[in-house]
Amino acid sequence: MGKEIPARNEDYSLWYNELVKKADLAEHSEVRGCMVIKPYGYSIWEKMQQALDKMFKDTGHSNAYFPLFVPKSLFEAEEKNAEGFAKECAIVTHYRLKTDPEHKGKLMVDPEAKLEEELVVRPTSEAIIWNTYKKWIQSYRDLPILVNQWANVVRWEMRTRLFLRTAEFLWQEGHTAHATADEAVRETVQMLDVYAEFAESFMAMPVIKGRKTDSERFPGAVDTYCIEAMMQDGKALQAGTSHFLGQNFAKAFNVKFTSKEGKLEDVWGTSWGVSTRLMGALIMAHSDDDGLVLPPKLAPIHVVIVPIFKSDEELKKITEKVDQISAALRKQGYAVKFDNRDTHKPGFKFAEWELKGVPVRLAIGPRDLENGTVEVARRDTKEKQVMKLDEVSAAVPRLLDDIQQSIYQRALGYRNEHITKVETYDELKKVLDEKGGFVSAHWDGTPETEAAIKEETKATIRCIPLDVKEEAGKCVYSGKPSNKRVLFARAY
Amino acid sequence: MGKEIPARNEDYSLWYNELVKKADLAEHSEVRGCMVIKPYGYSIWEKMQQALDKMFKDTGHSNAYFPLFVPKSLFEAEEKNAEGFAKECAIVTHYRLKTDPEHKGKLMVDPEAKLEEELVVRPTSEAIIWNTYKKWIQSYRDLPILVNQWANVVRWEMRTRLFLRTAEFLWQEGHTAHATADEAVRETVQMLDVYAEFAESFMAMPVIKGRKTDSERFPGAVDTYCIEAMMQDGKALQAGTSHFLGQNFAKAFNVKFTSKEGKLEDVWGTSWGVSTRLMGALIMAHSDDDGLVLPPKLAPIHVVIVPIFKSDEELKKITEKVDQISAALRKQGYAVKFDNRDTHKPGFKFAEWELKGVPVRLAIGPRDLENGTVEVARRDTKEKQVMKLDEVSAAVPRLLDDIQQSIYQRALGYRNEHITKVETYDELKKVLDEKGGFVSAHWDGTPETEAAIKEETKATIRCIPLDVKEEAGKCVYSGKPSNKRVLFARAY
Ligand SMILES: [Zn+2]
Ligand SMILES: [Zn+2]
Repeated sequence: MGKEIPARNEDYSLWYNELVKKADLAEHSEVRGCMVIKPYGYSIWEKMQQALDKMFKDTGHSNAYFPLFVPKSLFEAEEKNAEGFAKECAIVTHYRLKTDPEHKGKLMVDPEAKLEEELVVRPTSEAIIWNTYKKWIQSYRDLPILVNQWANVVRWEMRTRLFLRTAEFLWQEGHTAHATADEAVRETVQMLDVYAEFAESFMAMPVIKGRKTDSERFPGAVDTYCIEAMMQDGKALQAGTSHFLGQNFAKAFNVKFTSKEGKLEDVWGTSWGVSTRLMGALIMAHSDDDGLVLPPKLAPIHVVIVPIFKSDEELKKITEKVDQISAALRKQGYAVKFDNRDTHKPGFKFAEWELKGVPVRLAIGPRDLENGTVEVARRDTKEKQVMKLDEVSAAVPRLLDDIQQSIYQRALGYRNEHITKVETYDELKKVLDEKGGFVSAHWDGTPETEAAIKEETKATIRCIPLDVKEEAGKCVYSGKPSNKRVLFARAY
Repeated sequence: MGKEIPARNEDYSLWYNELVKKADLAEHSEVRGCMVIKPYGYSIWEKMQQALDKMFKDTGHSNAYFPLFVPKSLFEAEEKNAEGFAKECAIVTHYRLKTDPEHKGKLMVDPEAKLEEELVVRPTSEAIIWNTYKKWIQSYRDLPILVNQWANVVRWEMRTRLFLRTAEFLWQEGHTAHATADEAVRETVQMLDVYAEFAESFMAMPVIKGRKTDSERFPGAVDTYCIEAMMQDGKALQAGTSHFLGQNFAKAFNVKFTSKEGKLEDVWGTSWGVSTRLMGALIMAHSDDDGLVLPPKLAPIHVVIVPIFKSDEELKKITEKVDQISAALRKQGYAVKFDNRDTHKPGFKFAEWELKGVPVRLAIGPRDLENGTVEVARRDTKEKQVMKLDEVSAAVPRLLDDIQQSIYQRALGYRNEHITKVETYDELKKVLDEKGGFVSAHWDGTPETEAAIKEETKATIRCIPLDVKEEAGKCVYSGKPSNKRVLFARAY
């Protein structure tokens, strides 16, 4: 069939790449580092977008759209942000092509159409947005501004992987402006909670909420919060970030407001984002050697129905039953696919829909017609059961709920087993090499120790968990005193 | 209040610009020709997207995403398409900035990070997509491919206007691939019908379906179909196009398939798109000197409720009634805004919501409470009526339907009055100068005559209507024989 993918324990990385391609999620394009998101992959992303967009709107945010291009002079205004992204920016320098006099049928950049000021293709939009907010904000009455943007961004990456790291990716970026630091911090934490809720309830992916260390902070932020997930190979993946920007961008772009007390003050800001990277996380969190395992809440197809037939007559009778089941399920809001192709055998179809992660498969053959039954298979556990036809439309919704819970619980179990407390540096290295996962260890709080551990182990501090307990200890690396543990891991 | 806008008959162009800004739809950005779509404007665009996206999916299409950048060598492969867009392309030449040694705190393009091959920021995506379809298509079994993309595109325009002509704009572009010419033509016409249906049913904007002349055709297409709308100043606006691409892109990108008969053949293609330009059309089709008039089907807020009160006590009693009305309307799917600000007077609020085009306004004061009534005002005609409170939740939906129909009928009446048949060139010029609108005239079918008329009158042939009748006549310009009329107009 040409649809087999390698086993995870043979080559996890190859398993991932092949799965992404063979399940028709995405592929590489002719443009270095840029991917094509194929229809099936995009339909999962659309489900994510819909769920997130509703959560953003329910928390008072509106969508807007800001330019793709950032003039260099704006880009460089917030110095740390500019430094952070300068090395990976696509730059527009010209605005016209002309026919190449030396090569018939070819075009060349028109040297006379050079821009006076170069334009940076947005790697993130704080600069262009805060430059706009300057016009929108005069008084405390204009605050807060709660805006989100769905957009493409470009960060020139040298080593790319489908969904996980691409030169162009799709994301949403929230950018809010507030009258007080306190309100901005509350917004930052609220959006982190929204992300965690989305990851756990929709993606069925448990996450740890935490704070980044200084060295891992978003360039230009005062504080970066993140959610960290654990993949099946023991590597961590940062699934979303929410930044408290302090007054950094307000100062850089001169965004001030008159307070209730009549004083002119700098505005406080936040920004927060998740991207198509979540697709990579979703795939790696649940899928198995047979293909995708999708949580029902994000599955483009909830139920696939495969008829087992030898004659047109049989297919016709099966179709009548299938139409009833489909109608009953669709009425309840489920997406049902009836795979009645006569060009492929049932076994091929089973494998194909397993590869694509459809949560529930129904199979109906002539004997089922006689007995008034249907075979119901769940994708996550591969369990099958035979059910009465007239029970299906009530049973499938319960089964889908069960699958959603079940894959969450399985991922949670795996994640919890892969948080290991260590007391020494040797233990830390041993766990990273042999078991993987998060390693909970004392750290002395210095960037030097953090850098040394990263250099020696390739593990980074994923976060300082928000729920961390005060606990006296000694840094595993330096032996200096520490009052709390942080989470180390190798990461995507 | 600072919210007044000029009258249409004083300065239509200024009326439009001021309306777009004062109704918080969009504004100019710091980036030449690029706009910021503000939250209220974007929420109307979202409504458009949702309706169109559903129509695309109902006709069998899926969304996908292709790269923002097109390598120059792909861009130039389809020669006519390349020629057509070469003069208005943003070009990425470098992928890194570095600190400018001569100017502290500034960045400069790193000359060592020059791309080997320049990247064109997509002005349209046929090139990158057909280069991808080459990988997706081998056999007739892989056809048709029915894909749509929601994306931003860039066409470097020298004279820009908010929504109508901007360097960056948002749009959708459908790109389909077919085994036969006949099927591709049917798709082209189907999508034109979808656009016409959307324009008329959702935007309440009548359109004429037609074919473009050779000189107005999309670069690289065999045939371009369009829908043309009439604005209140007598100028036409092209609201959507659907292109039959023939085998042009298949040949340029070598996209072949094995037919049922086992022959290797070139694939047939279509592309079709509408953009944020529709926002400009929507605004200009219906709005008046007091602001926006929105068709209820695209209005982000259907009903605004303004309380008339002098004391907190009064507001409290009004709020109780309002909560009941709001709940009853929201239950039916309508978006209701209760404007209970105590910082502004009712008259200010009335003007503000008129400016923003909310279709229905309810006002409730103390006397209404006594009488169990509410004042209901419709935005389009400004008519007011007093209604029993308990009738409101049933009456408002009917009123909204009526408004949707009514503004369509008004626009249709205006449009129909502005199609003028002429027999001579003098008449054509006179109608264009004095009455405006579409001018239905005989044309000899030559690009020379078309160009001469355009040069002399600034009017273009908007389309050859699909429902045009065969009719013997003489070209108004050359006197040569003609067998059908075409529609001329000055246009946006
Ligand atoms: Zn790869
Ligand atoms: Zn302007």
